[in-house]
Amino acid sequence: MSTTTFAAVSAVKQRSDTEFSVDLSPAWTIGGRPNGGYLLAAVARAATVVSGHPDVLAASAHYLRSPEPGPAEIEVEVLRTGRTATQLRGRLLKDGVPQVEALLTLGVLGAAEPFWQDGVPRPEFGAFADEPWGDAELTPGIAIRDEIDVRFDRPIADGPSGRGELRALLALPGDEPFDPVSLLFAVDALPPATFDIAPSGWVPTLELTAYVRARPAPGPVRVLHRAHLIGDGRVDESCHVWDSAGTLVAQGTQLAGIRIG
Amino acid sequence: MSTTTFAAVSAVKQRSDTEFSVDLSPAWTIGGRPNGGYLLAAVARAATVVSGHPDVLAASAHYLRSPEPGPAEIEVEVLRTGRTATQLRGRLLKDGVPQVEALLTLGVLGAAEPFWQDGVPRPEFGAFADEPWGDAELTPGIAIRDEIDVRFDRPIADGPSGRGELRALLALPGDEPFDPVSLLFAVDALPPATFDIAPSGWVPTLELTAYVRARPAPGPVRVLHRAHLIGDGRVDESCHVWDSAGTLVAQGTQLAGIRIG
Repeated sequence: MSTTTFAAVSAVKQRSDTEFSVDLSPAWTIGGRPNGGYLLAAVARAATVVSGHPDVLAASAHYLRSPEPGPAEIEVEVLRTGRTATQLRGRLLKDGVPQVEALLTLGVLGAAEPFWQDGVPRPEFGAFADEPWGDAELTPGIAIRDEIDVRFDRPIADGPSGRGELRALLALPGDEPFDPVSLLFAVDALPPATFDIAPSGWVPTLELTAYVRARPAPGPVRVLHRAHLIGDGRVDESCHVWDSAGTLVAQGTQLAGIRIG
Repeated sequence: MSTTTFAAVSAVKQRSDTEFSVDLSPAWTIGGRPNGGYLLAAVARAATVVSGHPDVLAASAHYLRSPEPGPAEIEVEVLRTGRTATQLRGRLLKDGVPQVEALLTLGVLGAAEPFWQDGVPRPEFGAFADEPWGDAELTPGIAIRDEIDVRFDRPIADGPSGRGELRALLALPGDEPFDPVSLLFAVDALPPATFDIAPSGWVPTLELTAYVRARPAPGPVRVLHRAHLIGDGRVDESCHVWDSAGTLVAQGTQLAGIRIG
């Protein structure tokens, strides 16, 4: 059971015009290391403080190292403030050593219906979604499983479908409503979509890009997480996130390292 | 007819350990401004010089301003050199004013076949691909059309199909072979995929992320460029690039501004 809230574990404390501190939670880790989307969200919290615009629209992160939990520093630098957007550089450091480098564009999210969208199918969930996300034995060392509520649309214990696709309902602890910043976590919250193809060890994110498309309605989000090409020791994955009102609120893409096959 | 080569217009001159210069070609522009993928490629050329690894694997750019052609500066900073990858920050400036901010991960591209891939269909081309890319009247101010060779799979003059999808054969001037750096241009070379939905004005790229997945074989590449969601004044597009041997060599995603509808 969760002992944390996302707001608390991603909270930043301002130290100067450009410097913040964050306390990375040992509970929001996989194999003892904080989730990559969580780290990017913490950087985005700091960016939001210094930005002239409130909502993160686009965030791109390259992961240099994988920090241990505990105190860390965040530095933000406004690169440009325009009429419709603020663009920033953000970095997360541990004991002065850079861990995550990010670029962020912040603006204002509107409330209009999309003008056009393609047909990426929003996942539908049957009765199985009432089950928790499977045996702890299948996912050892995943502390974060005790924090977030993840309900897959089929029994993960049944093994890979071969489609490279995971579909799940995702809720933050205590059903905390998602916001644009926590959506940066949502696009990286599920296990690697490659688990639906073949087992592998750790799949460390090299690069993660997220686009936030709308302010999410309260309630759990639906996540479609897909692998696209596995080769040369790397995999790219895409992620689509819909809010409880059925609006596509975030899209993510990542390149990760993988040893498989 | 082309008067340039991509190697020439993206060439960088080293000024110091971290500083380079580039001469942005007026021929590689749309509405007088250099193409965004071209700018990112120039930054990547500089990154390649200082990197301990030869091949760009992932590049993410946020576009702050749209520079005029002519002399520009590039600064690169190695963030981390690891065993398998070098990660860098790169920026392009005009008269000292930042225009493009980028993060890059360089490594070594292998030659193995993919272990797994999903079914994104590689475009097939019929006889129409022998035609050049339509009347200049349809695409005024697009100087770059005289440099690159773009052959769509259907007559663009027929108007939008409504699918938000452009498919084309793309060649560099003089059939210069693509390399990992020029693939960063390839993922941003086509007109906005939104042109296949409805006409609009300029669609300025806010963020562009590219993954290079294999070293391309010589010859033209096949490009599939798709729009996904248009709303709130922004559109996201994805791009897949296959080389002449049929290998998926690059994937791109971008968020752009748009006024439409």
